[in-house]
Amino acid sequence: MKILLVGASGTIGQAVEANLKANHEVISANYANGDVKVDLGSPESIRNMFEVVGHVDAVISTAGVAAFAGFDDLTDIDYQTALNNKLMGQINLLRLGKSFINEGGSITLTSGVLSREPMHGSAVISMANGALESFVKAAALEVDNFRVNVVAPVFVKETMAMMGMDTESGLSANDTAKAYMAAVTGKMHGQTLDAPDYL
Amino acid sequence: MKILLVGASGTIGQAVEANLKANHEVISANYANGDVKVDLGSPESIRNMFEVVGHVDAVISTAGVAAFAGFDDLTDIDYQTALNNKLMGQINLLRLGKSFINEGGSITLTSGVLSREPMHGSAVISMANGALESFVKAAALEVDNFRVNVVAPVFVKETMAMMGMDTESGLSANDTAKAYMAAVTGKMHGQTLDAPDYL
Repeated sequence: MKILLVGASGTIGQAVEANLKANHEVISANYANGDVKVDLGSPESIRNMFEVVGHVDAVISTAGVAAFAGFDDLTDIDYQTALNNKLMGQINLLRLGKSFINEGGSITLTSGVLSREPMHGSAVISMANGALESFVKAAALEVDNFRVNVVAPVFVKETMAMMGMDTESGLSANDTAKAYMAAVTGKMHGQTLDAPDYL
Repeated sequence: MKILLVGASGTIGQAVEANLKANHEVISANYANGDVKVDLGSPESIRNMFEVVGHVDAVISTAGVAAFAGFDDLTDIDYQTALNNKLMGQINLLRLGKSFINEGGSITLTSGVLSREPMHGSAVISMANGALESFVKAAALEVDNFRVNVVAPVFVKETMAMMGMDTESGLSANDTAKAYMAAVTGKMHGQTLDAPDYL
């Protein structure tokens, strides 16, 4: 398959690319580098990416910016960035990319378990993740020629280690990547794939 | 209790006001009329409303604009309006209203069952509703001095009748109001109250 991977330079993105590369042609897209550059916060940039890349069998997004901060410290900009980038950026991958996805293909976005299992500091991220999961479930009812799903990772062990957290409750990036592989090769449509269910 | 009801002129809002009035002082807020006018899409207007009204024991929102339209017909403006009005407007009631809610009080927002049970045409509404439900669950972890919840109505029978729909699966506005009464008088915090559970 020809697969466009948006957010390929991130911790999860790198693991997804490593898992895909053995059997698929991967086109990497990042904000600062990759086969093609894309700013998820800009519909024009997303449109341009699809015009450069052309038709693909799958789009995977492991991208999206949103702030982790105490509720009382969150600014208007924190909300707007999450809505514009992590939420609308990924929604626009579907809206602007749908005519570039081959029949029978798929698009897989990224939310996160904080939508349903929030913690102190996650209000904006939980908001964006919950929006993505409900949106995908709804939009899938009206998408017939390819599949659309969203993967909900838990904390990634590599990130937790970097932040000095106990990694016990996390999942390695490589294990997280398995949910994306399942979304691309499976039959599910309109689903939220909780990463720990796909080990 | 002194209760600020935002969206008092809507079908659900009128029923909530009727249920509250017997035992509580209700201050109605609407876009075009009421005891105080408010534009949910404007943080400045929300801030002004709270300054005019002052401290309250409860805030109830039955307000919020979002478009019902086919996925292929939804415009950038449809997404932005839902995010700015139904989503951020209600989130800003909490952000800007928190210092005006008396100790032990509550704020109750409105999402809708389309977050979890979408239908054709609900993509933007499902998105906003899912965002609100996840946001409330997360923000509640960091709100200690009052309670915050969100009511998820199903279709209201009166609205369905007006639209020529079969009203079988709906709930009357008066029955829907019972979930808001439960949210104001109960002990729940950080919950999504499915309206049919509170008859």
